[in-house]
Amino acid sequence: MDIIVLKTDATEDEIKHVVKKLESRGLKANVSQGTERTIIGVIGDTSKVTEEEEDSIRAASGVENVVRILKPYKLASREFKKENTEISVRGVVIGGRKIPVMAGPCAVENRTVLTSIAEKVKAGGASFLRGGAFKPRTSPYSFQGLGEEGLKYLAEAREKTGLPIITECMDPRDLDVIVKYADIIQIGARNMQNFRLLLEVGSTQKPVMLKRGLSSTIKEWLMSAEYIMSRGNHQVMLCERGIRTFETATRNTLDLSAVPVLKQLTHLPVVVDPSHGTGKRDLVATMAKAAVAAGADALIIEVHTNPEEAMSDGDQSLKPDQFAKLMQELRPIALAVGREI
Amino acid sequence: MDIIVLKTDATEDEIKHVVKKLESRGLKANVSQGTERTIIGVIGDTSKVTEEEEDSIRAASGVENVVRILKPYKLASREFKKENTEISVRGVVIGGRKIPVMAGPCAVENRTVLTSIAEKVKAGGASFLRGGAFKPRTSPYSFQGLGEEGLKYLAEAREKTGLPIITECMDPRDLDVIVKYADIIQIGARNMQNFRLLLEVGSTQKPVMLKRGLSSTIKEWLMSAEYIMSRGNHQVMLCERGIRTFETATRNTLDLSAVPVLKQLTHLPVVVDPSHGTGKRDLVATMAKAAVAAGADALIIEVHTNPEEAMSDGDQSLKPDQFAKLMQELRPIALAVGREI
Amino acid sequence: MDIIVLKTDATEDEIKHVVKKLESRGLKANVSQGTERTIIGVIGDTSKVTEEEEDSIRAASGVENVVRILKPYKLASREFKKENTEISVRGVVIGGRKIPVMAGPCAVENRTVLTSIAEKVKAGGASFLRGGAFKPRTSPYSFQGLGEEGLKYLAEAREKTGLPIITECMDPRDLDVIVKYADIIQIGARNMQNFRLLLEVGSTQKPVMLKRGLSSTIKEWLMSAEYIMSRGNHQVMLCERGIRTFETATRNTLDLSAVPVLKQLTHLPVVVDPSHGTGKRDLVATMAKAAVAAGADALIIEVHTNPEEAMSDGDQSLKPDQFAKLMQELRPIALAVGREI
Amino acid sequence: MDIIVLKTDATEDEIKHVVKKLESRGLKANVSQGTERTIIGVIGDTSKVTEEEEDSIRAASGVENVVRILKPYKLASREFKKENTEISVRGVVIGGRKIPVMAGPCAVENRTVLTSIAEKVKAGGASFLRGGAFKPRTSPYSFQGLGEEGLKYLAEAREKTGLPIITECMDPRDLDVIVKYADIIQIGARNMQNFRLLLEVGSTQKPVMLKRGLSSTIKEWLMSAEYIMSRGNHQVMLCERGIRTFETATRNTLDLSAVPVLKQLTHLPVVVDPSHGTGKRDLVATMAKAAVAAGADALIIEVHTNPEEAMSDGDQSLKPDQFAKLMQELRPIALAVGREI
Repeated sequence: MDIIVLKTDATEDEIKHVVKKLESRGLKANVSQGTERTIIGVIGDTSKVTEEEEDSIRAASGVENVVRILKPYKLASREFKKENTEISVRGVVIGGRKIPVMAGPCAVENRTVLTSIAEKVKAGGASFLRGGAFKPRTSPYSFQGLGEEGLKYLAEAREKTGLPIITECMDPRDLDVIVKYADIIQIGARNMQNFRLLLEVGSTQKPVMLKRGLSSTIKEWLMSAEYIMSRGNHQVMLCERGIRTFETATRNTLDLSAVPVLKQLTHLPVVVDPSHGTGKRDLVATMAKAAVAAGADALIIEVHTNPEEAMSDGDQSLKPDQFAKLMQELRPIALAVGREI
Repeated sequence: MDIIVLKTDATEDEIKHVVKKLESRGLKANVSQGTERTIIGVIGDTSKVTEEEEDSIRAASGVENVVRILKPYKLASREFKKENTEISVRGVVIGGRKIPVMAGPCAVENRTVLTSIAEKVKAGGASFLRGGAFKPRTSPYSFQGLGEEGLKYLAEAREKTGLPIITECMDPRDLDVIVKYADIIQIGARNMQNFRLLLEVGSTQKPVMLKRGLSSTIKEWLMSAEYIMSRGNHQVMLCERGIRTFETATRNTLDLSAVPVLKQLTHLPVVVDPSHGTGKRDLVATMAKAAVAAGADALIIEVHTNPEEAMSDGDQSLKPDQFAKLMQELRPIALAVGREI
Repeated sequence: MDIIVLKTDATEDEIKHVVKKLESRGLKANVSQGTERTIIGVIGDTSKVTEEEEDSIRAASGVENVVRILKPYKLASREFKKENTEISVRGVVIGGRKIPVMAGPCAVENRTVLTSIAEKVKAGGASFLRGGAFKPRTSPYSFQGLGEEGLKYLAEAREKTGLPIITECMDPRDLDVIVKYADIIQIGARNMQNFRLLLEVGSTQKPVMLKRGLSSTIKEWLMSAEYIMSRGNHQVMLCERGIRTFETATRNTLDLSAVPVLKQLTHLPVVVDPSHGTGKRDLVATMAKAAVAAGADALIIEVHTNPEEAMSDGDQSLKPDQFAKLMQELRPIALAVGREI
Repeated sequence: MDIIVLKTDATEDEIKHVVKKLESRGLKANVSQGTERTIIGVIGDTSKVTEEEEDSIRAASGVENVVRILKPYKLASREFKKENTEISVRGVVIGGRKIPVMAGPCAVENRTVLTSIAEKVKAGGASFLRGGAFKPRTSPYSFQGLGEEGLKYLAEAREKTGLPIITECMDPRDLDVIVKYADIIQIGARNMQNFRLLLEVGSTQKPVMLKRGLSSTIKEWLMSAEYIMSRGNHQVMLCERGIRTFETATRNTLDLSAVPVLKQLTHLPVVVDPSHGTGKRDLVATMAKAAVAAGADALIIEVHTNPEEAMSDGDQSLKPDQFAKLMQELRPIALAVGREI
């Protein structure tokens, strides 16, 4: 809360009342009486002003609007920490010069399929294995994931391939078992504002990949990162995976501008998911390239040996050879922007 | 999955492959070879076709698109149950001719304030007391609610006023304690697709008010209702509270057309929340009237004795006298559409 | 342009440069040096600051953002003119206590059909006849309207029924002929920012109904009204006809909250179009009622004697008996909000 | 119109009525009676079915929905013409292996400034000079462009630098004079559905750059291209310049996925405008790189020698040295995707 715009017809008493409110919170008020409108600039450490206090000012009579200048997040902000955060996971760094790629099936289906995919994405050049054991599905009648069994298969695949694993947590009650197996905990788009879950993963020591909500602004997204960080876990990476717009030619609208915007606002690494971002296999490779050119620190891509038999998202999964080809094509683009794959 | 559109260059073999897939699931395929495009009509009980099977067809080579004709929800659909569902809560019916109004503060702050508000909304004509004990807040530094203490105050206020209470559940782990106190469990917009939470409230016997997600389609919303109902709890009401659009003059865009659309698609009662829908006190009364004219079965409205000191959403809360006045103004509109307040 | 937010690392020189810029435009700068951020409050008649000057400040080095407090429109604003504007058209007033209803086909098809519809909507209680002679169609292969011939049929129908007519102008070159026949000129949603067309209709003496663009904010809409008014034509009414969102259950999302918002910001009358707003015949009547409850000053509704044979928008047109029934149902709602149909 | 979905309770007579309608248009109806729903597949050349006829089917009683499988545009479609369209302008090809860059100020301000910018973007590597002589501005009080005088300055700058010029046409009445000077006619986002203007530029022999409307789907955009092409002018290029979403961190949301989607649907070249797409100078270079990686055939970028004194869009204009640096950085990315700058 930094600037308070008063209504055209605000009375002297109303203005005084607002000034008093500010002073009672240790802030100074700089009243600018314009010819048409009075505004109050708030001076002091407004970062300590809570949302409630801001609401309370906004609800005061005579006030038309409150314009917040200061960012409402702190730990996540570039001002708080100038250097890029690098997150090291079993020796692989996210947020450094190299751009690691996470690949694997949408859902873990069974041991054989998963191992086979893991070996193929490893051969193709992936640095992480992705796969969901707990799946958020829009229909209650859909496959909801294998649960802990799926986590075990992931751990076995890690054993065989050396690839660290990333998997989603949807429910605080699953967190203990997921922490036992996972190298990175994924928070899905639908849980970006599941605040209790954020606080819980913030209390672990595991790196977290926080996906952007379908209709979340960049500011809200950073506030959710702040939730996790406020509990002491600063190993947070943000994952752009497309937002919801009016356009239906793609499943979502991949907002690649969010990458350079985030690079200005925060020190946290930015991952891009072109699979969910587009929802169509034919578009994944092209948008993966664009993501690298836009400055992504990592990619997460769905790969399946037999997309047609995939239990989820088959239509947006690459086949292993398509994935391997893409990895080759990404290299010169990474070099062109001073990075490496 | 009901109609399969093939690519212009789909081969005979690809078409046969898809037909076989369908037949292996007990469905019949009706192939229509057009001059420019071949389509397959799927005949049989496609309601048993799961999301995965649909995805698998979509991922098959030669397939361009799958158009689902049947609704993906069943228990929630008007086809499944023709008559309106009426939910009776301590003698107050939601979904009948009368339009009950739920009113109270955004958050429960303390015993005194809550009791005072409860008495005033009761006097004004409210049928339910609303109030959050567990609060989803975008900032980790904001007031997160009183927890069980808040629930106790709500129960005390119910004792005093006779008003049944509605309060939000954000976390499955809070469910037991909330069930102990609440008459209706609210699932907030940010948790509309917290599928685990939906399954859990579906396992209780408590009526549930399911708020629409900020960027959820009506179809997704009904799928979330289906989640709850699939566990046996059919006492679900839907609450329109505004969607996210490009317009910033209001906090959200209240989608009142959703009311008559829902009336066609589902037998479940529809509640409208003009407080969150607009985010501005000055707009609440007008949009409450419009909601009744649009066919809302109930309203939920934020009321606070001292909005300026409210710990949350003060700028969109009515004062008790404004609320009482609104109740009077709603009566003739309700009558005009064959209802009663 | 009223508040200038400087970058965290803005230098003294950069600040001085901005202050000088303001002073060279006859404005005073009130610099507030906060602990974390410096802001400049601009004092003086900022309404004379043009868009270019604002952009120029925004482009200055050291400037992070410019927050405009004053509304960028003037003639259209409630501050400029406190009382509601009433527009009288052949004795029918728009913006007064009575709520006139405009009805008729989407497109004028031929003399017989138009006359028949005109007589039926007149009998049903309409005060205006609507009908397009020049039609904006998304496909170049669709019926584009009858042109002047259609205008003649409209004039004949007016002759017979006494109903004044409203019809759309898409091209400045058609304006002369349209002015000859029409009582109200409609500017369609797709032309809301056809600025040259706005200036031209602003130079006529005809009342104008300005439809909201599919993705136009309320502010941009009022700026377009300002365009018309800036040329001297103050007889402008605004028509909410639905905005584009992610929801596909309705053709557009009718933003009824825009009605009370406009009532605060402007003195111009507000019309609601539930036909385009929903795109479905079954929803039109309900949303017409909601629009009246929300404070609409007029309604515009598509009616066709044979929707199935309509050359455009048949699926959202009411039949004459449905229209007559709706008119009856609207009366008590109008009364309930202190109006009359 | 290809598939007709009937209501659950459609009668035999209603179905017969629809079948007859189709047959009267020379089409065959393939009725599939499912257990829960009847659908009709339409066989024959449905591309000749007009929008009105489709609407008429949709309005028939018993019909729930009409699903169009065939694309509503023809000349613009990849099916109609397999090879990429290459547009040659004074020897520079758009749509070929080389990626030309158009650069220059938002608006033409005066001769000196324009010439200076033209020389600098030429030196930096641009292939076209952009600059608006007729400017669409949201405020009637803003600078509206120099008109023909501006066109003359553009022609002079072309004389000096050899750069062909691109400039916007907002009004059919300006077309003659613009055609006299311009090498490419730009249709702005706000005029994407100014259908009369599209028909007029379609009647010229000049190449046209059609910008995407703020809230236009890709399908609507291609329909607008079809408008131009239907008049015989097939030299159309499409320009993605950002769509309107809920996100406010950028001026618009640059939808780069539109590039590969368009490459599948159409043979027309695709241009990307990262200046309007982001609205912020700091983001332009990064998104220009991403655009090239996404497959853009050309870029259009705002450059100004003194952004702070620019009469429009100064805050999103690059300085000449920033532009020259960007051109260097684009080269390796173009090579990485098999193109050249």
